[in-house]
Amino acid sequence: MDQNELKKQVGYKAAEFVEDGMTVGLGTGSTVKFLVDALGERVQNEGLKIVGVPTSDRTREQALSLGITVKGIDEVDHIDLTIDGADEIDNNFQGIKGGGAAHLWEKIVAINSTKNMWIVDASKMVDTLGKFPLPLEVIPYGSGQLIKKLDKMGLKPELRKRDGEIVLTDSKNYVIDLHLDAIEDPHDLEKELIQMVGVVEQGFFLDLVNTVIVGREEGPQVIDNIR
Amino acid sequence: MDQNELKKQVGYKAAEFVEDGMTVGLGTGSTVKFLVDALGERVQNEGLKIVGVPTSDRTREQALSLGITVKGIDEVDHIDLTIDGADEIDNNFQGIKGGGAAHLWEKIVAINSTKNMWIVDASKMVDTLGKFPLPLEVIPYGSGQLIKKLDKMGLKPELRKRDGEIVLTDSKNYVIDLHLDAIEDPHDLEKELIQMVGVVEQGFFLDLVNTVIVGREEGPQVIDNIR
Repeated sequence: MDQNELKKQVGYKAAEFVEDGMTVGLGTGSTVKFLVDALGERVQNEGLKIVGVPTSDRTREQALSLGITVKGIDEVDHIDLTIDGADEIDNNFQGIKGGGAAHLWEKIVAINSTKNMWIVDASKMVDTLGKFPLPLEVIPYGSGQLIKKLDKMGLKPELRKRDGEIVLTDSKNYVIDLHLDAIEDPHDLEKELIQMVGVVEQGFFLDLVNTVIVGREEGPQVIDNIR
Repeated sequence: MDQNELKKQVGYKAAEFVEDGMTVGLGTGSTVKFLVDALGERVQNEGLKIVGVPTSDRTREQALSLGITVKGIDEVDHIDLTIDGADEIDNNFQGIKGGGAAHLWEKIVAINSTKNMWIVDASKMVDTLGKFPLPLEVIPYGSGQLIKKLDKMGLKPELRKRDGEIVLTDSKNYVIDLHLDAIEDPHDLEKELIQMVGVVEQGFFLDLVNTVIVGREEGPQVIDNIR
């Protein structure tokens, strides 16, 4: 099975967990795209009634185009379940997100959700976080000085660009990727980074996820975080 | 002497500390306006050579109009001295800033400066911080949920508006003012606030200032922080 087929399987599997009347946080990324497709089908075929809270302009547009009712994070009272992708998940259910530069809004939705579910292909499951560069969202003003500081700290920072242009987030900030390779203590590094002036948010998603669905050849594997 | 005259005196006093060749961080506010006036006069009359690093679009425009060379925070190697106002300073030289909604850029410049000087009138000197509402700079997305959380924490949040319109910072974020009245432990509260998702920065300026100049009837008082 190719990776795209695996992503589709977990996306559709995750959609089964959505119940009538739920307010659902909708993540961002290639796997979530299949989830939103599946939810759109349930809305149209079964008359499923949900409110989607998108974490990016991209997801918002896709959901609207499929007839899913969409509300902003500040228009809902609470979120029952947020389903999102992840770039890395370790054995302790700790994650890194931000490959799509949407991690700030994703995290704002995640912390306002009663339950969080991540849907990934098997390549995202790792022993230790850090092979995937840890993304920071930073204020453009002073970001050059911040990069110098991060460099002195040995954190191997790199301003994210695409086609030679600096990548802007939906909040019009920059992304700095830290090439760390292996992160011994995510909680310690998280505290250090978030206190740095100019850092808006960082890509660690720690102690947040309740359920992970992993795409595997033999079919989607549902793992509950019972820690 | 009226308050404006006191502000003018400290602004002009502070300008005496600026030396030829310095890179100088230029704060924001009514007292700093007099400082920039004074620096402009020294540039024009004495041929003082400095590079100014402004902390707001307002200060940038004023400095340029007076013939002061201006560079962005990411165009300079370092800053020798930053001179800025403050909204409250306690007996331990801890401060609150952000009344002008410029505290994010002000803090980015301050932490990149070798020395920091605050210029204030005597009304800003207090025993305990907190009578002045503590300003947070926050991401607009999800700010409604954030206000609910801060409210539950008993921190009396209020979204800052002017003439009925939500105030936007130079980074296009919102400001939430916390009406705390008296803050027992600024360091503890700072740590708690900065870790909240959606909070970009908060208005505490702790362990940062080297010298305070206070406007008094008998003339400006220069106080060095020797703690």
